[in-house]
Amino acid sequence: MARSDIPDIVIGRLPIYLRALTHLRQEGQEITSSHELGRQLGISSAQIRKDLSHFGEFGKQGTGYNIASLSAELQRILHVDREWKVALVGIGDLGRALANYGGFAHRGFRITHLFDRDPNKIGQIIGNLEILAVDGMRAVLRADRVEVAMITTPAGAAQAVADELVEAGVRAILNYAPIALSVPASVRVQYIDPVLHLQRMVYYLE
Amino acid sequence: MARSDIPDIVIGRLPIYLRALTHLRQEGQEITSSHELGRQLGISSAQIRKDLSHFGEFGKQGTGYNIASLSAELQRILHVDREWKVALVGIGDLGRALANYGGFAHRGFRITHLFDRDPNKIGQIIGNLEILAVDGMRAVLRADRVEVAMITTPAGAAQAVADELVEAGVRAILNYAPIALSVPASVRVQYIDPVLHLQRMVYYLE
Repeated sequence: MARSDIPDIVIGRLPIYLRALTHLRQEGQEITSSHELGRQLGISSAQIRKDLSHFGEFGKQGTGYNIASLSAELQRILHVDREWKVALVGIGDLGRALANYGGFAHRGFRITHLFDRDPNKIGQIIGNLEILAVDGMRAVLRADRVEVAMITTPAGAAQAVADELVEAGVRAILNYAPIALSVPASVRVQYIDPVLHLQRMVYYLE
Repeated sequence: MARSDIPDIVIGRLPIYLRALTHLRQEGQEITSSHELGRQLGISSAQIRKDLSHFGEFGKQGTGYNIASLSAELQRILHVDREWKVALVGIGDLGRALANYGGFAHRGFRITHLFDRDPNKIGQIIGNLEILAVDGMRAVLRADRVEVAMITTPAGAAQAVADELVEAGVRAILNYAPIALSVPASVRVQYIDPVLHLQRMVYYLE
């Protein structure tokens, strides 16, 4: 099946499966099943088997999935069997937290560029990265072929930053700013919005 | 239909609809349709109508949805027509960013308590809130009847904090720490994991 024919909702679940497999592997487990994964994730085992069937045959009835090989396969499918460079724009408290976040390694991403427009921040070092001026961002990202970025600026600055990122050749943007971005159809945007998650939980509280 | 019979995946989409309606309203629009919402959100209009039909009749064929009344209805359904107190535990860079985040207001939540275990941070003021000692957390949250919390501690501290929160009566936890939490079935947990979102996007890049 062509990549473009697989529903976004299915693709959206693959990283969840990959994360669960990684946890099982870290606990020393070698084999799992759609039933075990389903129980852990609150997804039906039939759904998991159907999702994976878009990409071929994994595991056999009765023997389950080999965790290492299914993980490798999912990484290949998701294009995270490589390491993507990531630019981070807006080095406030949140940007600083993400720059120091250890959770990107071994999952396909590495923050390689930090940008801010505040002259007092430009030139500062976080980890082993220097904060660069957002003015020069387009040229730097083009030269270094960076295709993934995270926006952690205030809402008012985010659209202008997104426009620059698109001009620079970035094709995937994770936006933490509380504003909907307008980008060309060829560019993917996802949003981190803590309120969505909170709302999904309090529905169940009286 | 009883609340518990409605699939989690449907509940998960309601906050997305509510956010889209809020944006339209802020732009001065009064009426929308499942087609317009669907186009904006990349969800089929049939799916949107089906999701909403779990909760009754909204809008009429041909006349669309009144944005204000559908918003009010979704707020009521999601229990965000009130303001939930939220405790924030772990006041590092990320906790500080969330404490200063303007996006909670008018969406059903207000951060009312900040906790940390670092003696140098305890007593500091962020906004109009004092950072309290995590040692006294259980008693404070019980007394103030706080049912919602966000964990922004390092991974190693998160499970112990979650245990304390559960003891304190918290029933909904948004976890930013990169670790799966173990909590009783009566407690809801959601995770903020930027890598999931990045992985969902680079699937589409070559």
